[in-house]
Amino acid sequence: MREKSDSTNVRRHNLSLVLRALRDGGPTTRAKLADETGLTKAAVSSLVAELVDRGLAREGRLEQTGYTGRPGLIHEVDGEVCGIGVEISVDYVSAVAVALTGEVRANRRLALDVKGSAPDVALDAVAELVRQVLRTRGCRPVGITVAVPGVVDHAAGRVAFASNLGWRDVAVVDGLARRLRRTRLPIEVDNDVKLAAVAEWVSGVAAGTADLAYLFGEAGVGAGFISGGRVVRGTRGFSGEIGHLPLDPRQRECPCGRRGCWETMVGLGTLLHLAADPDDPVHDPARDIDERLTDLRRRAERGDRRTLDALNTIAADLGLGASVLINMVNPEVLVLGGYFAALGDFLLDGVRAQVAARVLAPDAGGCRIVLSGLGFAAAGHGGAQAALERIVTDPTIAG
Amino acid sequence: MREKSDSTNVRRHNLSLVLRALRDGGPTTRAKLADETGLTKAAVSSLVAELVDRGLAREGRLEQTGYTGRPGLIHEVDGEVCGIGVEISVDYVSAVAVALTGEVRANRRLALDVKGSAPDVALDAVAELVRQVLRTRGCRPVGITVAVPGVVDHAAGRVAFASNLGWRDVAVVDGLARRLRRTRLPIEVDNDVKLAAVAEWVSGVAAGTADLAYLFGEAGVGAGFISGGRVVRGTRGFSGEIGHLPLDPRQRECPCGRRGCWETMVGLGTLLHLAADPDDPVHDPARDIDERLTDLRRRAERGDRRTLDALNTIAADLGLGASVLINMVNPEVLVLGGYFAALGDFLLDGVRAQVAARVLAPDAGGCRIVLSGLGFAAAGHGGAQAALERIVTDPTIAG
Repeated sequence: MREKSDSTNVRRHNLSLVLRALRDGGPTTRAKLADETGLTKAAVSSLVAELVDRGLAREGRLEQTGYTGRPGLIHEVDGEVCGIGVEISVDYVSAVAVALTGEVRANRRLALDVKGSAPDVALDAVAELVRQVLRTRGCRPVGITVAVPGVVDHAAGRVAFASNLGWRDVAVVDGLARRLRRTRLPIEVDNDVKLAAVAEWVSGVAAGTADLAYLFGEAGVGAGFISGGRVVRGTRGFSGEIGHLPLDPRQRECPCGRRGCWETMVGLGTLLHLAADPDDPVHDPARDIDERLTDLRRRAERGDRRTLDALNTIAADLGLGASVLINMVNPEVLVLGGYFAALGDFLLDGVRAQVAARVLAPDAGGCRIVLSGLGFAAAGHGGAQAALERIVTDPTIAG
Repeated sequence: MREKSDSTNVRRHNLSLVLRALRDGGPTTRAKLADETGLTKAAVSSLVAELVDRGLAREGRLEQTGYTGRPGLIHEVDGEVCGIGVEISVDYVSAVAVALTGEVRANRRLALDVKGSAPDVALDAVAELVRQVLRTRGCRPVGITVAVPGVVDHAAGRVAFASNLGWRDVAVVDGLARRLRRTRLPIEVDNDVKLAAVAEWVSGVAAGTADLAYLFGEAGVGAGFISGGRVVRGTRGFSGEIGHLPLDPRQRECPCGRRGCWETMVGLGTLLHLAADPDDPVHDPARDIDERLTDLRRRAERGDRRTLDALNTIAADLGLGASVLINMVNPEVLVLGGYFAALGDFLLDGVRAQVAARVLAPDAGGCRIVLSGLGFAAAGHGGAQAALERIVTDPTIAG
């Protein structure tokens, strides 16, 4: 419980305070920043000057007031400062640049059979995409965060394994740093669902909620948590591995080699298996996932019994695992993402009923369950936000 | 992600910084505090003076140096400042006073059939115990935290329900505040396992670990987590409800009304049932739990097959649930408490084997599994520490 501080830390903390106020509150004067942060006007002036020097803020126009007296000079975050989010997925790689102002400056995606290729091929493709994004006019990058669907040792910068990619112990940070040596950008790698949870927290339906949990469903299932306004990362970044909870009383075999994993109950493959015969086009892996889910949605909307039964089964089992999450961390909001969101209006009632029955705290501990609006690409956006957040937390690493 | 601050907050933060440094580092001079905190000597002098005014710190002797020059005046935390921890258990209530220096100043315990009495009777008894503790010489209380084995709405100050006590919706904070009106002490109520986790974190075998998880086993099972140096409380304080994870493929009935809860696999009742016939003295609820566990330990030590088989079964099932916890929050250390610690040397190998097989991250995500040394009364001690922590975090609420 020891806390250590020194004057460098205090300065860093105050720089962060001012930059955060500028980012969240928009353009403003130093006088108003002083009001808001409780720092003296002299201190704010010095801090703003340092942010300008470091390229994170800039002088804008003069304040327009109806009053006489000296108008204040407006300052704002530098809209060219960008975080780069990279996503490595089963069948594509992507890179997105998001500005401190929240605007998307560039967004590139490349179809690639990542599973069928060596990790070096994927990293080559990612490096090339990032170089393209870096050439975007008006984009000054401050860091890169790579999202990978797997078990990621965040501290070591390595993917321990990602079964959907066929990866085991891949040094993503070192591999990319070598390829992007000239950019000298700080690079991190993190689990895709954890980064999608960051995206939800920064810009999703429940943005800013201090205690947020996120469940993502696609082939596998993962979770991310925010507690007390901070990402629950765990000691080495391995938190959120909820897909292999041993919840299935039928003890079905899981691709991970274990039996009874929750993923075997609520993964997309199980929904498809329940809802359609093997030769049904919804099974076709060559079709885009959004299209296949739209097929299922149409069938559900016209009342197709088999589809609705399948969704009801998934909803009950999704609620079972969701209740574990809610019992463990008591979130204010649980956001459902991935295919759980795409078909969420057919799942929510069933999920809520299970959660009400399974959560010990009254009224599900006050937890609201809502659907993500960010789609399947939330992880890349969250990666860019995570890269920006590092700068906002410690502006001294810029410039 | 908005952070608000003003000069009052900055002062409060710095008071906390100095008080924490005094508590954790022991008696020291203002000059050394300035070195350690990075604050100016003038600021430290003013902050220390305010802590003395508020009765949280005091002047000590002069520093003994071998050098010439002016010796510094030593300051230290005021050893009379105490947090009061109260425990309401099935068959006793207790109150303990712990000083800022970590010393136990008073410790009272009263046998009481809490389950067989109305909540008011227990609250009367607690109020009387607290009054006795408050009469201790050299104890200046700053707050009370009550530990209850149940589902606690921390924010509302109420026990939602505690099945072992037969309680449902009991206003513990209001009830005690009325009885202890004259003391004007701030009172909180929290789940006993969460408070035991705080005790582990402050003074247990893994004290100070930033990412700590704690599992407590008695009749029921509960968990507490510390993440990034902060208690994961959840939005209303309901986190840590791990006992009713639906993990039992045999779907046995649980007293909670559900089927297949983890508690039915690893609660103390199940161990006793597996290890001994119904007329065996280890089942006698009138005997102290430590005595009954000592009986089992002796049997295990002399190689009694039935006892060892029972412990092996419990170990495997304990590892199953522990792996859920480790997959979810990736702790650096998992502390086993309650009866899991008392018989832990017969459980650890089995738990570790299951965890190694069940945790997705390599090497169990780096998690060490250790046994608590704090015994069954950790919750009361944690309550006292939680009451102290409120003062250390915000010294302006004292004096």
